[in-house]
Amino acid sequence: MLEEIASASARPLDPGSPLTRDTECSGDGPGRAAVDFPVAVILPAGGSGERMGLPTPKQFCTILNRPLISYTIQAFERLSWIGTVVVVVAKENHDLMLNIVREFHHTKVKVVHGGTSRHRSVFNGLQAFSNSTDDSLTPKPKVVIIHDAVRPFVEEDLLLKITLAAKEEGASGAIRPLVSTVIATTLEGYLDHSLERAKYRASEMPQGFLYDIIFQAYQLCSEYDFDFGTECLHLALQYCGTNAKLIEGPPTLWKVTYKRDLAAAEAIIKENLSTSACVITEAAAEAVELAGTLQKNLATQGMVLVGVSSPELFLRLDMHLFESSREMKEKVKLNTTKRSFDTQKTDEITTFMRLASEVKQANVQLYGIQIDHTKVSELWERSAARLADITVALIRDRNPALIGQLLQA
Amino acid sequence: MLEEIASASARPLDPGSPLTRDTECSGDGPGRAAVDFPVAVILPAGGSGERMGLPTPKQFCTILNRPLISYTIQAFERLSWIGTVVVVVAKENHDLMLNIVREFHHTKVKVVHGGTSRHRSVFNGLQAFSNSTDDSLTPKPKVVIIHDAVRPFVEEDLLLKITLAAKEEGASGAIRPLVSTVIATTLEGYLDHSLERAKYRASEMPQGFLYDIIFQAYQLCSEYDFDFGTECLHLALQYCGTNAKLIEGPPTLWKVTYKRDLAAAEAIIKENLSTSACVITEAAAEAVELAGTLQKNLATQGMVLVGVSSPELFLRLDMHLFESSREMKEKVKLNTTKRSFDTQKTDEITTFMRLASEVKQANVQLYGIQIDHTKVSELWERSAARLADITVALIRDRNPALIGQLLQA
Repeated sequence: MLEEIASASARPLDPGSPLTRDTECSGDGPGRAAVDFPVAVILPAGGSGERMGLPTPKQFCTILNRPLISYTIQAFERLSWIGTVVVVVAKENHDLMLNIVREFHHTKVKVVHGGTSRHRSVFNGLQAFSNSTDDSLTPKPKVVIIHDAVRPFVEEDLLLKITLAAKEEGASGAIRPLVSTVIATTLEGYLDHSLERAKYRASEMPQGFLYDIIFQAYQLCSEYDFDFGTECLHLALQYCGTNAKLIEGPPTLWKVTYKRDLAAAEAIIKENLSTSACVITEAAAEAVELAGTLQKNLATQGMVLVGVSSPELFLRLDMHLFESSREMKEKVKLNTTKRSFDTQKTDEITTFMRLASEVKQANVQLYGIQIDHTKVSELWERSAARLADITVALIRDRNPALIGQLLQA
Repeated sequence: MLEEIASASARPLDPGSPLTRDTECSGDGPGRAAVDFPVAVILPAGGSGERMGLPTPKQFCTILNRPLISYTIQAFERLSWIGTVVVVVAKENHDLMLNIVREFHHTKVKVVHGGTSRHRSVFNGLQAFSNSTDDSLTPKPKVVIIHDAVRPFVEEDLLLKITLAAKEEGASGAIRPLVSTVIATTLEGYLDHSLERAKYRASEMPQGFLYDIIFQAYQLCSEYDFDFGTECLHLALQYCGTNAKLIEGPPTLWKVTYKRDLAAAEAIIKENLSTSACVITEAAAEAVELAGTLQKNLATQGMVLVGVSSPELFLRLDMHLFESSREMKEKVKLNTTKRSFDTQKTDEITTFMRLASEVKQANVQLYGIQIDHTKVSELWERSAARLADITVALIRDRNPALIGQLLQA
């Protein structure tokens, strides 16, 4: 039982893969076979985030205690066919970025300093690779993927298409249909004409390039391009005659731009993390019945019950997991005990709160739910339904302020 | 004290004005003086919401138990200078829409049936007004505002600019800078060219028109325009020679398009609702000290403590409020009592849960927080900080699954 819970729960709750349900997260996905050449990534992350109206640049804003950029890095790092991820940051954020790399155990990241524009930053990133045999430099890849630090939900499927098209055609880019009509304005601020929507697309990220093509484009382009150009694909066309292959991406590609986008990103991450619950019960004999009822109720919410254990098992289990795996971060646990008011003393609550605060150190969120094991089936069903509601709510919200609370179902 | 709480709490928690902090919500804003001619609104709401990947069309998705479209209607209804709001819905949603109008007490809404395209729906909306003297029809307005049902955060300031520009110039529309570069594609799916971002804008809503201009444009336009055109401003230009005045709107204008946008909208609404807490305490003598500490802690989160009362006062207060005002919907209350484990019996919890479930009928969310009134100042400060954390979390999340729970600070 112990092993079953450990293995079943460690994967779907891994915070490093916000799209667990939709994508292949191991390095053994379809990409490994298809990509037999070196691929690197450049993540420009020098933006100041003015549009957010927040003091922190958006790529460093945290969602569930993890900076946005760490989710994005992880989306690339988890793929075995992707090598170095060059993160380009403003000089003042260099130490912050190194701390993130350390804290979230990123292993493929190389941090370099950005320039005064997005293009200068990307070019700095490209220069982190080398044609020479100098061992201190990373050898240049065949294909380089350019992405945004603030688009955390990029899937292997699309990365693969972008990479293979870039290898084949020299350049490739993700596109999306336009959400709004695009209009041209007169100098005086009046409508000049509107564009026919069907002929145009929004250019998104990721984009892929043969390293030699994009490097050459930057070597040839003008200072004006460096300062005011917005589109790498345009440089490849203008300076290397390469027409990029365009590939339609999913809506999840969107860029975290405004403050509200952080809430949207958090909701997506939570929804993908919140797919399983582990129940620990005091009364082993009743656990099976309770688990059955809870399982049925959770299923209607798209969640899975991964295991039931006694409190002693829970403690041993957790100690085991805490020590063996960093995957356990932000795991949510439910403590379901039989409600027993007579014995509910200060001691019990205090003990539970202390336990919760201890396991919190290991990023396990422990909440308690007490349930009356009544023989009146109507009351029991109501309590079981409430148990499921509270369980779902706690797992979805992952609210640190409620850790260690003993709730009543 | 009682009156103070009633008046202070009723306004900022009014769910009908999600932007309470930023906008003028009464009918006595700047618009009343500036607009001395009849203005009506058309809200096309016939969309099927395919892009959401949800079974419910997005305009009918609920946020905090209220359909999105009701927030949008309210954004117009609260302005005294705006008359009829014509909501255009698909025939199969007619009854649903009438129910929403009833349940959320909308008073200016007229529901009409949509056509097979957005333009046909808008034209149907325009035909709800009349040039004739037939009393069964609403007289035509001078200016008509066309908006989207799924853009709930429209502010009076912008509506006023749009309306006055439409009166002056014949047509006007909100614009936003482009978030992505727009590119033209070849038939084979390659990059043709990219547009210079500075010359183009995204055309958003609301748009304003002299009624006669937009009505005439629709009478002259082709079947092709009706079926495939996307831009009302374009019709006014093409068929009436009217160049619309373009006005840059705020980022909150964005359109709820994808499922993630619902989470973003919910976060905005919650943030604007969650600005005040009301504390009820058992121990009146200690209330002042507790309130002072809580107030300081809440202030750091941008929240205001609106009042402190005893439980008896709370009950009388609520009965008073429940009866007098529908503004109380979704109000959140905190019940802060002295923690007393010795007397904590089944009875106390059961009574509290029953009370919570009763006031829930009146859309008051009641949560309990118990606090140890210890003399050890270090412990007291920690508890007070936790009290604030839990208070903020409960108010922000407004989680119905936790109603009636007795938490420990």
